[in-house]
Amino acid sequence: MSVATIDWVHAPCRTPRADLAAAARERQAQLTKPPGSLGALEAAAVRLAGLQGVLKPSLERVWISVFAADHGVAAEGISAFPQAVTGEMVRNFARGGAAISVLARELGASLEVVHLGTVNDPGELPGVRREWIAAQTANFARGEAMTPSQLALALRAGAESARCADGAGAQLFIGGEMGIGNTTAATALACALLGAAPEALAGAGTGLDGSGIARKAATVAQALALHGAADSPLAWLRCIGGFELAALVGAYIAAAQRGLPVLVDGFIASAAALAAVRLQPDCRAWMLFSHRSQEQGHARLLEALGAEPLLDLQLRLGEASGAAVAVPLLRLACALHAGMATFAEAGVSAA
Amino acid sequence: MSVATIDWVHAPCRTPRADLAAAARERQAQLTKPPGSLGALEAAAVRLAGLQGVLKPSLERVWISVFAADHGVAAEGISAFPQAVTGEMVRNFARGGAAISVLARELGASLEVVHLGTVNDPGELPGVRREWIAAQTANFARGEAMTPSQLALALRAGAESARCADGAGAQLFIGGEMGIGNTTAATALACALLGAAPEALAGAGTGLDGSGIARKAATVAQALALHGAADSPLAWLRCIGGFELAALVGAYIAAAQRGLPVLVDGFIASAAALAAVRLQPDCRAWMLFSHRSQEQGHARLLEALGAEPLLDLQLRLGEASGAAVAVPLLRLACALHAGMATFAEAGVSAA
Repeated sequence: MSVATIDWVHAPCRTPRADLAAAARERQAQLTKPPGSLGALEAAAVRLAGLQGVLKPSLERVWISVFAADHGVAAEGISAFPQAVTGEMVRNFARGGAAISVLARELGASLEVVHLGTVNDPGELPGVRREWIAAQTANFARGEAMTPSQLALALRAGAESARCADGAGAQLFIGGEMGIGNTTAATALACALLGAAPEALAGAGTGLDGSGIARKAATVAQALALHGAADSPLAWLRCIGGFELAALVGAYIAAAQRGLPVLVDGFIASAAALAAVRLQPDCRAWMLFSHRSQEQGHARLLEALGAEPLLDLQLRLGEASGAAVAVPLLRLACALHAGMATFAEAGVSAA
Repeated sequence: MSVATIDWVHAPCRTPRADLAAAARERQAQLTKPPGSLGALEAAAVRLAGLQGVLKPSLERVWISVFAADHGVAAEGISAFPQAVTGEMVRNFARGGAAISVLARELGASLEVVHLGTVNDPGELPGVRREWIAAQTANFARGEAMTPSQLALALRAGAESARCADGAGAQLFIGGEMGIGNTTAATALACALLGAAPEALAGAGTGLDGSGIARKAATVAQALALHGAADSPLAWLRCIGGFELAALVGAYIAAAQRGLPVLVDGFIASAAALAAVRLQPDCRAWMLFSHRSQEQGHARLLEALGAEPLLDLQLRLGEASGAAVAVPLLRLACALHAGMATFAEAGVSAA
C-alpha cells in the first residue's frame, strides 16, 4: 500500500444542520422548566439535533470501537505495566471482562475491538477485528514509530470502523484505545501539536511514580528533539504516534466525512482528536467531549480543542470507558428534549 | 397532632457496614484496570456496598419522591415565575410532562409526587399523594412560616415517603421539590445554619435578574433578623423553611433510620440535607451527592456537608432532576464493580 492512500483524509467533512440546531434551541425554550435550567443537557440536545439533522435527536444505536496496539517506546520503561498486558487485554475485551465490555453491555452498544498488533498475540478472537500492522511500533525515542505505509494502514483501519458504524445505522461513534505505553505516545503527540514542554504534559498514566513520570518526560523530550524535522500533524503522527492513535485520527475524520457524531474519550483520544482537527479542521464540528481525565495533560488538550466535557470523575482508564459513561447523560438529554411538555401543552404559566 | 410527634427524628440511624465497604475496596483493587483508574465510580461502588450491606451493590429499584408546596414569602416578589406555577406543575408531574416525569420513565424509577399544599389546588390526581397541610406557609419575612403542628406534619409526610420506598424494596431514595419561592426559603435556611450573609448565598433561582437577587437577599436578611431568637435547626426550619423543605428533612432522617441510601439533588435538597445532618449527624453517612448546582449558594452547602457530587452540568431545575441524571452513573459504577473480571480471572498481568 502506498503513501498516496492517505489522500482520503483531505476529503471534505459534512456540515451540521444549523437550522435544526436553531429549531431545537427554540423548542428547549418552550419546555416546562426555567429557561437554561437543564444546563449542559440542553446544549447537548441542541448540538445533537444539528448533527443528526432532526428536531428530536436520539441515541439508541451507539457504536464503540476500541483500537489495541503495542508501542516500541515501552522499552524505555515508561509504563507501570508490562507490555504483555496489551494482548492480554485484547483477550479480556473479547471475553467480556474489561471495563468497556461491561459498559457496552449495560448501554446496549455495539462493541468492536480492532487489533492492530501486539507483542503478545492472542490470535483470532470473536468480536475482534484483526487489522494486523506489526507487533508494535518502532521505539520513537530512537527512530520513527511507523513507516508511511504503516501509518496509512492504521488511518484506514480507523476509517473502516467509522464506515462499519455508519453502515450499521449508528447514531454516535465512540473510539477507545488500549496499548501499554500509549500515554507516552499521546504526550509526545500533544507536545508536538501544542508546542508544550514534556514536563507540562507528562502524567502518571496507568500509575507511574514521580521518577517514572520524569523518565517519561525525558523520553518525550528525546523524541521531540530526534524528530524535530517533522513539519505536519501527519508527520508527527507517523514519527511519534501509535497505531491506535492513528486509527482514532482516521476514525474521527471518516466519521465527520460521513456526518456521524463522535464522542471523544479521555487524554489519548483527545490527543488523536487534536491531530484530526489539525489535519482537517472541519471535523471538530462533529465532536462531543465526554470527560475531563485525571491524566495531567488532558486539560491543555481540551483547551486547545475548545472542549467542555460533560463529566469530571477522575477517570484515567481509557478503553473508551469515560465516553461510555457519558452516554446515559446524552440519552437523558435527548429524552428530556423530546419528552417534556411545553408550557402551552401543560397549561403552565411562563415567567 | 401535637409537637411531641417530632420526637421520632431523634431515634438512631442505622450504621453502614464498614466490613463490606472494605471488601468492596479490595475487590476494586483486583479488577482488570490500573488501581484507582475509575475514580469516583470506584468510590461510589465501595460506598454503596457499605450502605446496602452487600459486596456487589445494585440499583435496579430507585424511588423518587417530589414534594410540592407553596410559600407565603412569594408575596415579597422573589421569584421569576407566578405562584400559580406550583399547582400547575403538580398537574404536569401527574400527566408525565415535567423533567422528572421523563427522567423517572427513562430510569424505570418509581415516581411519587407528594402534594403538601398549593395556592392553586389541582385537586386529587393519579400518582399524587395528597398530604395537604395548608395552601402555603406564612410569609416568613413577616412572621413564622409554620406552626409547630404544620412542621410535624411536613416532617412526617417526608418520613412516610421513605417508609413507602423502603417497603417497596427501593435500593436508593431520591427526594425532590417544587415550590415557587423555595430557593428563597432554602437560602434563608442555609444562611441560618451556616451563619452566612444573604448576599453570599442568594442566587438567581428560576431566573431573577440582579435587582431580583438583591430583593431576595434583602428579604432573607429581614427574615433572619425577625427570627433571630431561633436556636435550633428545627426552630429555623419552622420559622423560615417550607413544607417541602421540612418533608425532605424528614425523608432523609427516616431513610437513614431505615438504612436506605439517599441521593441528594441540588441547592434546595442540600439545604434540607444540612438541616437533617445538624438535627441528626448520623444521617450524613447515608447520603450520596448527585450534582453541583448552578445556584449561587450550593458550593457553600456542599462544603459544609463535606460532599463531592458526581456531576457539574450547570443544572438548576430542582424536582430531583439532577439526582435522577446521576442515577445511570451509579448504576454503571455497580455494573463495573460486579461485572469486570479480576486480573486472576482474566489472566492479565498486574503492575
